[in-house]
Amino acid sequence: MALTGIRVVDLTRILAGPFCTLLLADMGADVIKIETPKGGDPVRVQGTIKDGLSWYFAQFNRNKKSVVLDLYSDEGKQALADLLRTADVVVENYRPGVFAKMGFDQAKLDELNPNLIVTSVNGYGSTGPYVDRPSFDFIAQAMSGFMSVNGPPDGDPMRAAPPLSDLIAGLYAAFGVVSALVGRGRTGRGQRVESSLTGGLISMMAYLSAQYFATGEPPARTGNNHPIVAPYGLFHASDGMVAVAPSNNVFVERFLGVLGLEYILSEPDFSDNAKRMANRDRLNALVNEKTSEQTVDHWIDVINKAGCPCGRVMDLGEVFTDPQVLAQEMVLEVEQPGYGPVRMTGFPVKLSDTPCRVRHPAPRLGEHTAEVMSEIGYDADRVARLAPAND
Amino acid sequence: MALTGIRVVDLTRILAGPFCTLLLADMGADVIKIETPKGGDPVRVQGTIKDGLSWYFAQFNRNKKSVVLDLYSDEGKQALADLLRTADVVVENYRPGVFAKMGFDQAKLDELNPNLIVTSVNGYGSTGPYVDRPSFDFIAQAMSGFMSVNGPPDGDPMRAAPPLSDLIAGLYAAFGVVSALVGRGRTGRGQRVESSLTGGLISMMAYLSAQYFATGEPPARTGNNHPIVAPYGLFHASDGMVAVAPSNNVFVERFLGVLGLEYILSEPDFSDNAKRMANRDRLNALVNEKTSEQTVDHWIDVINKAGCPCGRVMDLGEVFTDPQVLAQEMVLEVEQPGYGPVRMTGFPVKLSDTPCRVRHPAPRLGEHTAEVMSEIGYDADRVARLAPAND
Repeated sequence: MALTGIRVVDLTRILAGPFCTLLLADMGADVIKIETPKGGDPVRVQGTIKDGLSWYFAQFNRNKKSVVLDLYSDEGKQALADLLRTADVVVENYRPGVFAKMGFDQAKLDELNPNLIVTSVNGYGSTGPYVDRPSFDFIAQAMSGFMSVNGPPDGDPMRAAPPLSDLIAGLYAAFGVVSALVGRGRTGRGQRVESSLTGGLISMMAYLSAQYFATGEPPARTGNNHPIVAPYGLFHASDGMVAVAPSNNVFVERFLGVLGLEYILSEPDFSDNAKRMANRDRLNALVNEKTSEQTVDHWIDVINKAGCPCGRVMDLGEVFTDPQVLAQEMVLEVEQPGYGPVRMTGFPVKLSDTPCRVRHPAPRLGEHTAEVMSEIGYDADRVARLAPAND
Repeated sequence: MALTGIRVVDLTRILAGPFCTLLLADMGADVIKIETPKGGDPVRVQGTIKDGLSWYFAQFNRNKKSVVLDLYSDEGKQALADLLRTADVVVENYRPGVFAKMGFDQAKLDELNPNLIVTSVNGYGSTGPYVDRPSFDFIAQAMSGFMSVNGPPDGDPMRAAPPLSDLIAGLYAAFGVVSALVGRGRTGRGQRVESSLTGGLISMMAYLSAQYFATGEPPARTGNNHPIVAPYGLFHASDGMVAVAPSNNVFVERFLGVLGLEYILSEPDFSDNAKRMANRDRLNALVNEKTSEQTVDHWIDVINKAGCPCGRVMDLGEVFTDPQVLAQEMVLEVEQPGYGPVRMTGFPVKLSDTPCRVRHPAPRLGEHTAEVMSEIGYDADRVARLAPAND
């Protein structure tokens, strides 16, 4: 696999950090998840629990090993130090400064392992006036500007339902780690890598940020309407909704042609995009009148065949039974010992020669403490002292 | 820099592909953007144009070189082949199959350069029943399930305003490319890397997908309300809104304590989370009554000091003047020759020893045709035949 032989010590919990290490593990890295003796990662008992297993935990921790260490104890800290000596990468998502206070400042890390890539996923970055503030996905969505542009124009600023800032920060951190590995291949040296919930989501504002920078005017919420193109958006079929995105005049002609409405393009109220924007409500009413005559399936078929981007508005039940999603192997079934098969999301990055795959299911708490510690020379007594409560 | 010496031939346009190559360029890769003779990347004339320059183009194409080739001509195809021989990575975002039809199928690419990492960013993946459909961010938001969970519970499914599926697919592709580079360092071989707009966004459904897989019930839209925690969300201060995310009982106590409302936790209607959820409207009214007595600044200060995650709901004007965002260097000013300073978003991944930086501004169309082609042995006459209309 692409990252075979890369050893990652993973001190993260909840979501942003564990998503970073999941991406590395799915690519073949050997990820050693360090967990606290009392229950480990809180996600073990969060999200939807089925027959005693968190399917949320199972999805985000496949391909990782679990080692229990009490990092408040001297023996636990020593064991972490011994693991870091053998690692390529460490990932933590403490608040900035906490890892140093635990005894692992940069000088100590350099002493243990000068080639180590030290990765922090945090809320606001590790410098600046908000560095000590607690963070959280919902807060990063508010403070990145995302909420200010998301949602209907006549409603409140609106969060995205998925924890986007956590996931994006985790993905950026994984990209940073692997970039640092490429750099280390040339220089031989490790370095610090960092991403933040707020910074990551800010970088996703794309043309909205460019619009603000160029004009000084913050963009407003426009809901499902495209800010500068019509027709565009969701339209009602007889049995559901269809999303249509005719992003230029060629696509508009194709879309209206399929509906039998191409004639309106020669009417003065709809003859160019500016006029269509000015008369958008009437235009959308004409389009909806036509689309409501047939089913979603019909429109998806004929609008796509005309070469205009369109699609069904799917709930997650439709998504995960969709033939394309299944063909892309975006649903995996993983045998979880003691629990049976667990379904989870597949791999978003496809590599032809070294594809991502599930090597093992999410670990039981401390499942690999003995295995991992004995590999670095700990005898059974010493392992037993580290993690008395583990199997 | 981390990716110094990595040479990327970039055939992409618009957003998803160019974001992938931007991330590689910001990390130090040598990105050669191949553009068509007639105007090049359409984004050169899209987004907010100021004094003739698209600030959107400037942001997403910094650190790249522009080479104009007519890929419909034999000479253009030959020039591309010659560039691919010298490259580590090629990135394209054609519809699947188009690059092969242009003459660059895998056999040809293997013949040109067996170590090449061949990267496709596409709509639905390169296999499966929808492979020939045109795609677009709005459609991927609909078909990934994102829209089904985004937005207010009593409204339509709602897109996110930023083009999230494009950006996430680009970021996944960049992660895939760099992972494949690490793999190549061990095996010496290139391979194909792929990400899609739909697959990328599906992978961001996190606990919502786990909930569907475990229960068979697709999650509904819950707007700004947390599906299982109260109080949580946006609250009205005297001069704006405050986002507060007390994700567990400790944070709830801290938050209500700051408001002087801790006494309600001993009342039967609010004594645990289930009761607070059942009486959420009354609870939110009590909280809003208190928060409306003071300013946003006041609440941000005291709620953070109490250790509960909270933040201001910022528009992009507030974001890009925020002291933390500025301390994190998330606003860059880049001198664009002929246009003056252009402001744009900074780097979301921080590396300590080899930080991302702006080496040069977004290129003029064909600015580097002569430089890049002469480096691989093309003489002036041959360059002139390739790109007669360029400077």
